[in-house]
Amino acid sequence: MTYCLGILLPEGLVLASDSRTNAGVDQIAIVRKLATFKESGDRMIALLSAGNLATTQAVVTLLRQAIGNGPERDLMAAKTLFDAATIVSDTYRSVLARDQEAVRPYGDATGSFLIGGQIKGERQRLFQMYPAGNFVEATPRTQFLQIGEAKYGKPILDRALDFDSSIGHSAKLALLSFDATIRSNLSVAPPIDLLCYKKDSFSTDGLRKYSGNDQAWESIREAYSAGLMNVLDNIPNPETGVD
Amino acid sequence: MTYCLGILLPEGLVLASDSRTNAGVDQIAIVRKLATFKESGDRMIALLSAGNLATTQAVVTLLRQAIGNGPERDLMAAKTLFDAATIVSDTYRSVLARDQEAVRPYGDATGSFLIGGQIKGERQRLFQMYPAGNFVEATPRTQFLQIGEAKYGKPILDRALDFDSSIGHSAKLALLSFDATIRSNLSVAPPIDLLCYKKDSFSTDGLRKYSGNDQAWESIREAYSAGLMNVLDNIPNPETGVD
Repeated sequence: MTYCLGILLPEGLVLASDSRTNAGVDQIAIVRKLATFKESGDRMIALLSAGNLATTQAVVTLLRQAIGNGPERDLMAAKTLFDAATIVSDTYRSVLARDQEAVRPYGDATGSFLIGGQIKGERQRLFQMYPAGNFVEATPRTQFLQIGEAKYGKPILDRALDFDSSIGHSAKLALLSFDATIRSNLSVAPPIDLLCYKKDSFSTDGLRKYSGNDQAWESIREAYSAGLMNVLDNIPNPETGVD
Repeated sequence: MTYCLGILLPEGLVLASDSRTNAGVDQIAIVRKLATFKESGDRMIALLSAGNLATTQAVVTLLRQAIGNGPERDLMAAKTLFDAATIVSDTYRSVLARDQEAVRPYGDATGSFLIGGQIKGERQRLFQMYPAGNFVEATPRTQFLQIGEAKYGKPILDRALDFDSSIGHSAKLALLSFDATIRSNLSVAPPIDLLCYKKDSFSTDGLRKYSGNDQAWESIREAYSAGLMNVLDNIPNPETGVD
């Protein structure tokens, strides 16, 4: 499994992925699931992936190989992030066309993706691509998108994320959303790659890796846990009828 | 979908279920998914169910019809809660044997159950029955069991429930666990049936229905939301690299 999260904000984007990949609980590894593509001053495109690792790695590799080799599959030539998402989809479908039948006896060859970023002339945008290769876009009403193990980390976002949240506040919620997921699902694990993207920066300066024992992340987790316990202790218990 | 939760405690049990049943989003209804069986002073058995409603209703009805009609399927004649769970399993499998093939073209006929309670001579116990009819028992290390839409409501339990939690504290967490689930999944909805069982009481006096606008539940939800926002606001944001 995997957990990837993308948040669309007025100020920019917050994108995050875990690093666990597994084929059964006895075969696990650490991989990076957040790939960035940029051209100085012109665009920043991040691709976060879940699902079959051979498929998603092939997609990223083919996208890198396609740069400068004709506009059809070149993310650097895309005029809009919608067009970039279409290129990811085309590349993904070509990988599936090659591998899906051969993989079927062993499992599922499909993947899913978040595509977030900005191309000059547009605002920042965020897309979620389904295993079929079609995709939807985040909006102020649907400001965060998740792929992989999405459920454990959703309640805190539903409660505490607003469309006018700052990048810093959203990054904090993202780290807590990953903490909730990691506590409940063995197949999601650090390090967390977290990219805070500021609009019009066309930069990946806000990319940071949080290891499991990262001090900043740990202090957020601990403050949250302690604060939550305190809140719960201060809420009166309901009538149980058996006191 | 459905969400049912059972918590095993030194003092007793906390059992809860929602009331939404649906066949597609355009065909929904309210049903009770928590059934109780008791004999004065001798036993209290509660059965919480998820899955195909025709199947789970048939199981409850057959279990009620079997009372006094021979020991094989009579929950009132079971000597232990393990034996009671076996009776539920046998009854469930007989329903499946009758209906599963006929239902298959339309969907899934299976169900799952939580069986919690106490029979005189034993401590309180809690079992989870899988769609196959086999079952596992809660222990101090696995003190809560869930069926149906389990994920959204799990993080708060993982964080805040201890084996020595009181019935009242656990009931509060159960209501918040249902709140998290209801916020994220349309197919889980109030009223919530919540049974607080005190060990050796052999009573269902602690059964209470929480409607969506129940004042006690609402005040817990509101205090939790406000407290959580306050906790989050007081945790410093992480370095984003883009400030």
